[in-house]
Amino acid sequence: MEHIFQNVQEKTPLVHCITNYVTVNDCANILLACGGSPIMADDIDEAAEITAICGATVLNIGTLNRRTIESMLAAGKRANELGHPVVLDPVGAGASALRTQAAERLIKEVRFSAIRGNISEIKTVAGGTGSTKGVDASEDDALSADTLASGVALAQKLSKDTGAVVAITGAVDIVTDAKQTYLIRNGHPAMSKITGTGCMLTAMTGAYLAANRKEDYAAAAALCTALMGYAGELAYQKAQESDAGTGSMRTYLIDAISKMTYETLSGGMKIETVRS
Amino acid sequence: MEHIFQNVQEKTPLVHCITNYVTVNDCANILLACGGSPIMADDIDEAAEITAICGATVLNIGTLNRRTIESMLAAGKRANELGHPVVLDPVGAGASALRTQAAERLIKEVRFSAIRGNISEIKTVAGGTGSTKGVDASEDDALSADTLASGVALAQKLSKDTGAVVAITGAVDIVTDAKQTYLIRNGHPAMSKITGTGCMLTAMTGAYLAANRKEDYAAAAALCTALMGYAGELAYQKAQESDAGTGSMRTYLIDAISKMTYETLSGGMKIETVRS
Amino acid sequence: MEHIFQNVQEKTPLVHCITNYVTVNDCANILLACGGSPIMADDIDEAAEITAICGATVLNIGTLNRRTIESMLAAGKRANELGHPVVLDPVGAGASALRTQAAERLIKEVRFSAIRGNISEIKTVAGGTGSTKGVDASEDDALSADTLASGVALAQKLSKDTGAVVAITGAVDIVTDAKQTYLIRNGHPAMSKITGTGCMLTAMTGAYLAANRKEDYAAAAALCTALMGYAGELAYQKAQESDAGTGSMRTYLIDAISKMTYETLSGGMKIETVRS
Repeated sequence: MEHIFQNVQEKTPLVHCITNYVTVNDCANILLACGGSPIMADDIDEAAEITAICGATVLNIGTLNRRTIESMLAAGKRANELGHPVVLDPVGAGASALRTQAAERLIKEVRFSAIRGNISEIKTVAGGTGSTKGVDASEDDALSADTLASGVALAQKLSKDTGAVVAITGAVDIVTDAKQTYLIRNGHPAMSKITGTGCMLTAMTGAYLAANRKEDYAAAAALCTALMGYAGELAYQKAQESDAGTGSMRTYLIDAISKMTYETLSGGMKIETVRS
Repeated sequence: MEHIFQNVQEKTPLVHCITNYVTVNDCANILLACGGSPIMADDIDEAAEITAICGATVLNIGTLNRRTIESMLAAGKRANELGHPVVLDPVGAGASALRTQAAERLIKEVRFSAIRGNISEIKTVAGGTGSTKGVDASEDDALSADTLASGVALAQKLSKDTGAVVAITGAVDIVTDAKQTYLIRNGHPAMSKITGTGCMLTAMTGAYLAANRKEDYAAAAALCTALMGYAGELAYQKAQESDAGTGSMRTYLIDAISKMTYETLSGGMKIETVRS
Repeated sequence: MEHIFQNVQEKTPLVHCITNYVTVNDCANILLACGGSPIMADDIDEAAEITAICGATVLNIGTLNRRTIESMLAAGKRANELGHPVVLDPVGAGASALRTQAAERLIKEVRFSAIRGNISEIKTVAGGTGSTKGVDASEDDALSADTLASGVALAQKLSKDTGAVVAITGAVDIVTDAKQTYLIRNGHPAMSKITGTGCMLTAMTGAYLAANRKEDYAAAAALCTALMGYAGELAYQKAQESDAGTGSMRTYLIDAISKMTYETLSGGMKIETVRS
């Protein structure tokens, strides 16, 4: 997977994000840290045009509104025309009708290259009945060893239905394009105490897809997911060593991404493939 | 007050914030750090629905606009119907007619459980003539030992008029529900060099009210105010020890909140009750 | 230049920013760190009124939209009426027609005291053909020793055309009011891995102009540019010493600004004047 990692470093992919204002700064900084370059533009008068100069488009429905939904549709459709990868983060799908419907409409009108969410969000967009606790996964939905198989089946089904690589992140992350399925066992529970780790991963996924070939999208999304998780482990460890809290851990997370080499990552990532 | 603190840790209250985009990320991270869980949603098409799944609603009028004022009203009214606590931060009330009128309209149409602001903002919403320096309190309004009594009287009057717990934060913080009045002598002047310490405290107040009983709202707001102030002291101290500046102090503030135990807090908080 | 620096510290200039939501928190924190005070307000119903109580107005077109363009025009015109300095950051001008046209319209309808951008943005607003890579300068446009003279000529021409101090930031920074031209050789390439260093400098320029006399605007903008660059050097050095990455460097940048004295700055700044 080394070429996938190096491609991001070497190509500095420009990623257009229409994303929520809660975590947008972290998304921009993590894109820079991983080797990409961010541009945020959410107005309908420029959304499609900005998409055209970028290598990928990331649509994140946290803090969405009527105005930005139209911009997301315009950007997504333009990216489809140009063959650029488009990534969806259905933040809070299931928490309100607006979010659920926006996610459904986006999936209906835009062909996504990747969709990343927690188990509750993915259940919702897969047409199921995901319960949510706001923007976090419901505990009822949490993946355990017992339910991992059903999570894999869900991800594979949504991938078949949409043609997108599907990533369900949680204690164990699942990434699949229906043909190839990866389980990633990186990350640390303390990451859930930092806002936006999901948004940041989605933004980075945009950079990883932009810099790599279509046939490598699932592998690229899996590697990127492992990168985020391993960086979280390193950040947690550093915070522990310095007796620091979640504020420092957030900073160390960006630090870890910005300093990551493939050699370090390959020593820490825990990616396995699932036999079908 | 230990049960008030532990309730937040144990219940992980979900707090809906319609808040300004300047400090929204800090509000989300401090909510997570104190034991709560944030969800930001400001569109009229989902505001009331998101409020319904949350334990508290926080309305902050920094960077408000016509669109979000309507969302605040819808969310606040829904929270009232459901009996959920609603907290107001009248950021910059007095600095523009839009803000003053928005604060007045919110107070008229929504029953608030708590209102937190600096002395100039509280003077303005109390129908007085608070002068402001932008979003900071005017020096003319600054509370000194001499004017503390008038600050207490102002807070008690606004509390009686609105039924809300009123918190005036400054060199000395005043928290009152008209029956019980607390003075909090925590905090450090350097906190004013970090944007959003007021917004963050208001967001945390939402979590503290959500997790506690109505009869404890004043005590919960007072404890939360002491928590913020004491965390600021610890953050300042750590920044001094490492010869760091305000960027690090902001990070250490979140660190301190995330690592706070009741034992530590009770050793550092300086809350006194005022005899009526 | 010491009085220019001390004026900011002593006058605590209030700066009204209508700025993008990606870097707005950093802009607020750096304004506080440098001695100013921020207020963000972008609604047409209060933009001009907020401008009136401030010492300077900063207009930044990153994440602009139809609503905020009108607010920028209203705020800029009000500042002109009052004789308050107005600073423009044409973020991404050249990357979309919306941004290019918004920048042109702002320059046509508002008299700016300063305009700061990268070489591609400044080429675009000067009516040239700046190529852009999103919000970063195109490599085709990058200033080298060979092209520095043409950069200076471009800045001087735009300054003559608009009456504004023009700052082009890059490997070498150019600041000119057409009469006096400064080259600043501070900064570190790693600053480009932190989002918003340009936005932050523009915000600080607002504070520096607000606190100083009109005849010192070019010197104030030059000093402020050197301050940002030197703080970036110190931040990079501290990050290197602690084996940290870009997350920490961002924090250290704010730290360095907040702790800067004129004595330290004068020992590190590399400002030279260009003979005409």
